[in-house]
Amino acid sequence: MTGNVFGKSFQIMTFGESHGKAVGVVIDGVKPGLPISEKEIQRELDRRKPGQSRVTTSRKEEDKIQILSGIFRGKTTGTPICMIVWNKDADPSKYEKIKDLFRPGHADFTYLKKYGIRDYRGGGRSSGRETVSRVAAGAIAKKILSKKGIKVTAYCKEIAGIEAKHFDAKQIEKNPVRCPDKTAAKKMEAAILKARSKGNSLGGIVEILATGVPPGLGEPVFSKLDAELAKALMSIGSVKGVEFGSGFKAAKMTGKQHNDEMFMSKGQVKFKTNNAGGILGGISTGQDIVARIAVKPTASISMPQKTVDTKGKNRTIKAEGRHDPCICPSVVPVAEAMVAIVLADAMAVQKGRKRLD
Amino acid sequence: MTGNVFGKSFQIMTFGESHGKAVGVVIDGVKPGLPISEKEIQRELDRRKPGQSRVTTSRKEEDKIQILSGIFRGKTTGTPICMIVWNKDADPSKYEKIKDLFRPGHADFTYLKKYGIRDYRGGGRSSGRETVSRVAAGAIAKKILSKKGIKVTAYCKEIAGIEAKHFDAKQIEKNPVRCPDKTAAKKMEAAILKARSKGNSLGGIVEILATGVPPGLGEPVFSKLDAELAKALMSIGSVKGVEFGSGFKAAKMTGKQHNDEMFMSKGQVKFKTNNAGGILGGISTGQDIVARIAVKPTASISMPQKTVDTKGKNRTIKAEGRHDPCICPSVVPVAEAMVAIVLADAMAVQKGRKRLD
Amino acid sequence: MTGNVFGKSFQIMTFGESHGKAVGVVIDGVKPGLPISEKEIQRELDRRKPGQSRVTTSRKEEDKIQILSGIFRGKTTGTPICMIVWNKDADPSKYEKIKDLFRPGHADFTYLKKYGIRDYRGGGRSSGRETVSRVAAGAIAKKILSKKGIKVTAYCKEIAGIEAKHFDAKQIEKNPVRCPDKTAAKKMEAAILKARSKGNSLGGIVEILATGVPPGLGEPVFSKLDAELAKALMSIGSVKGVEFGSGFKAAKMTGKQHNDEMFMSKGQVKFKTNNAGGILGGISTGQDIVARIAVKPTASISMPQKTVDTKGKNRTIKAEGRHDPCICPSVVPVAEAMVAIVLADAMAVQKGRKRLD
Amino acid sequence: MTGNVFGKSFQIMTFGESHGKAVGVVIDGVKPGLPISEKEIQRELDRRKPGQSRVTTSRKEEDKIQILSGIFRGKTTGTPICMIVWNKDADPSKYEKIKDLFRPGHADFTYLKKYGIRDYRGGGRSSGRETVSRVAAGAIAKKILSKKGIKVTAYCKEIAGIEAKHFDAKQIEKNPVRCPDKTAAKKMEAAILKARSKGNSLGGIVEILATGVPPGLGEPVFSKLDAELAKALMSIGSVKGVEFGSGFKAAKMTGKQHNDEMFMSKGQVKFKTNNAGGILGGISTGQDIVARIAVKPTASISMPQKTVDTKGKNRTIKAEGRHDPCICPSVVPVAEAMVAIVLADAMAVQKGRKRLD
Repeated sequence: MTGNVFGKSFQIMTFGESHGKAVGVVIDGVKPGLPISEKEIQRELDRRKPGQSRVTTSRKEEDKIQILSGIFRGKTTGTPICMIVWNKDADPSKYEKIKDLFRPGHADFTYLKKYGIRDYRGGGRSSGRETVSRVAAGAIAKKILSKKGIKVTAYCKEIAGIEAKHFDAKQIEKNPVRCPDKTAAKKMEAAILKARSKGNSLGGIVEILATGVPPGLGEPVFSKLDAELAKALMSIGSVKGVEFGSGFKAAKMTGKQHNDEMFMSKGQVKFKTNNAGGILGGISTGQDIVARIAVKPTASISMPQKTVDTKGKNRTIKAEGRHDPCICPSVVPVAEAMVAIVLADAMAVQKGRKRLD
Repeated sequence: MTGNVFGKSFQIMTFGESHGKAVGVVIDGVKPGLPISEKEIQRELDRRKPGQSRVTTSRKEEDKIQILSGIFRGKTTGTPICMIVWNKDADPSKYEKIKDLFRPGHADFTYLKKYGIRDYRGGGRSSGRETVSRVAAGAIAKKILSKKGIKVTAYCKEIAGIEAKHFDAKQIEKNPVRCPDKTAAKKMEAAILKARSKGNSLGGIVEILATGVPPGLGEPVFSKLDAELAKALMSIGSVKGVEFGSGFKAAKMTGKQHNDEMFMSKGQVKFKTNNAGGILGGISTGQDIVARIAVKPTASISMPQKTVDTKGKNRTIKAEGRHDPCICPSVVPVAEAMVAIVLADAMAVQKGRKRLD
Repeated sequence: MTGNVFGKSFQIMTFGESHGKAVGVVIDGVKPGLPISEKEIQRELDRRKPGQSRVTTSRKEEDKIQILSGIFRGKTTGTPICMIVWNKDADPSKYEKIKDLFRPGHADFTYLKKYGIRDYRGGGRSSGRETVSRVAAGAIAKKILSKKGIKVTAYCKEIAGIEAKHFDAKQIEKNPVRCPDKTAAKKMEAAILKARSKGNSLGGIVEILATGVPPGLGEPVFSKLDAELAKALMSIGSVKGVEFGSGFKAAKMTGKQHNDEMFMSKGQVKFKTNNAGGILGGISTGQDIVARIAVKPTASISMPQKTVDTKGKNRTIKAEGRHDPCICPSVVPVAEAMVAIVLADAMAVQKGRKRLD
Repeated sequence: MTGNVFGKSFQIMTFGESHGKAVGVVIDGVKPGLPISEKEIQRELDRRKPGQSRVTTSRKEEDKIQILSGIFRGKTTGTPICMIVWNKDADPSKYEKIKDLFRPGHADFTYLKKYGIRDYRGGGRSSGRETVSRVAAGAIAKKILSKKGIKVTAYCKEIAGIEAKHFDAKQIEKNPVRCPDKTAAKKMEAAILKARSKGNSLGGIVEILATGVPPGLGEPVFSKLDAELAKALMSIGSVKGVEFGSGFKAAKMTGKQHNDEMFMSKGQVKFKTNNAGGILGGISTGQDIVARIAVKPTASISMPQKTVDTKGKNRTIKAEGRHDPCICPSVVPVAEAMVAIVLADAMAVQKGRKRLD
């Protein structure tokens, strides 16, 4: 399986560069009979869209989704769904100046080393623009999950060291940093604007919550649910770490503290705690799945940085152009999409694993 | 691809349960002409073997590797290599008592939910015993890497909150906790023995270092090198988090702090820092690859815990039998193996991606 | 891997229905640095295009290819190439009449059984129109192969029992039936026109020849080169059989007759005959690869046929609309494309298999 | 996916060489709860075993199957099943003489070209002995199918031009050539013995019948059921062609003759004929699946043949050792196994494709 393909049974292939003609995705293995409209996909894409607030990039893209195949009379037919978004606000001319420079923190150097050729316009394929495809595919995955009562929600848990202390789901989409804690949100926003004013950028932590997940998803010993989720989330640009449930805190805990004890409640097995993050032995327990990702500060900053060029000369670079001072709010819908894709895929796979009677 | 298969070009399939007849692995896609002996595999397996010190389980397994195929006159032929280890010290009788109980922190509950049937003898397939297969495959991956000057080393970075402050590679295999800092190692060992005496267990952090990795490995946008490593490492039992380079610390850094600036040194591109952990845009940079995993405290503890049984009754459980009070030292060779497998695979894949001239 | 994905290292995913918005393909794993233009793709698509002669359907499609990604300044970048063709001459209204009927010899019945929903407009996904995607991907595969001196040529070997007796490569594209024997071509054309005048249709045999293939391609024991080619060719609609070299004639031969004896000629290993069809043990020998496929007569005929409808009633059907009386000439570029895709893929895979020294 | 792996959801990886320690298979994705015993597997292996009659090789192998994993108390657990057979009658010494020779019709030349190294003992991995793994895996696939009322039967349809004219299923296992026509069987046997006496060998045609297959299996447009079956069958050594239903005869038919008309019978859709061979548009129709494969005459003959050696010298070779004068009867259980594996896999895949309601 090549690098731009993801999933086993609900399988996607994405394409497109930042300043090419279009970005998009083909999804194969979508169950037939699912009602789906461009409007539903658009709603998710609009959440990802740049230029939405003061804390994000000013690139203006309409990001209008177009479904090219796989839908007949408003329903999926089981055949591949291709969706594309045309790049409109592509202005590659400003990249001419830096076409020979390796931007620190970006993939310029590694792409050239790997492929021996590089589309330098806005990072080409390594641009965050490729996440349009992920979000579009995720919208369909979410629709499938919603039919089974599963919901995936992400939000900023921490930015610049400021942590969300409360969880009010309704707040998330009401503030530009997508934080479920109103007070923390304001502080985060202020921190981002301050960083921007200095030409600097910030990192943060995004938490993803999946509720209503049935027990039994995940394929040991390599395609464990947390292993597939880790791959999916780590594949998002700028992510430097992934953890589930107790995560890195588990390193400092004892077994007595960490084990989630079980008890019966109204005929159902319940867990006293959720250090597992909803996954045990790589298989969903039926509890909420809780994941967190560490997002590095945006690589493009307007402060001067040392670098080298393709000719092997030392140079100094200062990013111009538009960029987010903190991409965490933009990562939120992308992280949701990736988790939804993994869950939709795991559900389809599990169907073929059911016990024979 | 099913759950017990891993890799694309260097591909493994593993099998075996804790108290079944044998555990093993088949590896396909191994390059032909590689000299390999059972002795080399055995050396790695011996590092993983239980019963090696006071801080590990007392299960006695010879863990003698047997190569069944794929080697002719001491060299690989390019055909699949099957390796097996017979289970000798299998004593399933003691599991009869707990066959109806779901052990907290173990996969008992989720395996039953997923498969509708469960081999309760020592956790069956969910036992750490399956890592024999990973280590055996990893030994061959390491041999391939060594031909290219690549070396993978793992060690305990932290146990019970005690951190390694120094890095002395020679210390790692000299102490039972596999810690590169002699002083920290002693404290870690003491902490483990103390936890054991209370019937409790401890977690920790294992760090993995890969040196000599060429730039260009990894397949954006989904099979990025860090994404595949994250999957590989998260698939190891008890791992709750994975991070690269700066990892979760990136969340609190600014772009100016985080970006690894570049400069020329003797005609080579160098990086001032390695917050990237050796991977940018999902592709290796040529720097050291640095990953860390959070390992949860061993689920089996001899303190009493609340749980339920398969009939839906509340019960109390107290682990008997042999188990590690801290599995971090045992995870070390397994983590090395998984990283080596991912790198060997990525190298074979990259061969087919080379620029056409 | 889902059903619309093909290949391992040179991997394609296709999409699109006969009367949907567009058909297309995404190709991942294309080597970087390959010069490629829409013109080159168009040339192959034009060979496939309907409405080219009296012996084919009259559907008028411009079939203009549009490359959306993966090419930068005229060269491949190693990132996914998406190509689409808009459906222009889509006139689904005429399918309203037969939307409840299962056309004999078509996939109407099986699609409804499989998916529980069916895009009845011109067969939807099961239409021959999906081969646009194959031919577009094949054009890129052919370009890669041409850089290595490999050429894939297909032609009609037999139609209506009329066999090509001579092989003149230059004739193939000069006659509407794509036959390398001028005289046979005229007879074939006459037979097709006669069948059309009766509202009937004809089958035939297409032969595919690949020259310049290096020895060593193919992955035993399941992804043997002939096994992958068989899958690729059998996946083309209307194909009922595939054979290599001696093919079904081998059943009547003795070992003495069938074995291709070897001898040295100018320091090279040569074979006296090519009953193997260029493949031994699933690996290319370096000889020409010779494959043949049996193509069934077009299912759409204007003679009345018995069938049933979706309500379970007996009915009679008579195809209206445009259709080829014999699709063999149209299958020619599609068969070439599929063989080229398999060879390009096998070459990339083999790169990762090279002996370690 | 590497070359020794086959299937998507019911997935196998095989290993082992003719004169290595063992041959075997690991199967992943087997549904849990299936009762399975070594005895059942053995029964199928015994049908494949060499040395069964005058028309087969005299190699004496007990071929005793050993299940190493995946079964608990007589039932599958959903975890990988490893099965091995030890090579007992391995006598590689007699191959020393021909270790530098390329045997005509064998894979000696191509294996050396591909891998740069070759296990010359009895053909190594390219030996028919690898089919032990296929038959063992097929036995489990057959068991799964039998639970759903599906049965796969193969038999010799033609040997040395002698065709079976009648079909009496009970005859198949009663004669050494596995022919359903008693009279033809005797002629076939005589022809084989005659060829053997001359040191020559014969080819033939094996037909495979799958009954009870539900409609809806197969994944267009590339993993069509016939495409996957073609790959599976072509991957068997010595197979030179595959066809379904009308097969190559379709080339001489008209649409009117070929289309299988439909009608209602007792509320069920029925087909008047089965030229489709049970598959339309790559999806099973619910009719019997009918496939035929062309098997080339055994490459090992004791008549002298011209060849070359690894040093580039012209040589003459005369096979000694044991070999079948006609492998068709031995191919029968292997072909059944491959078809059963494809069907079991397609059924598991289809589960994940079911329409959402």
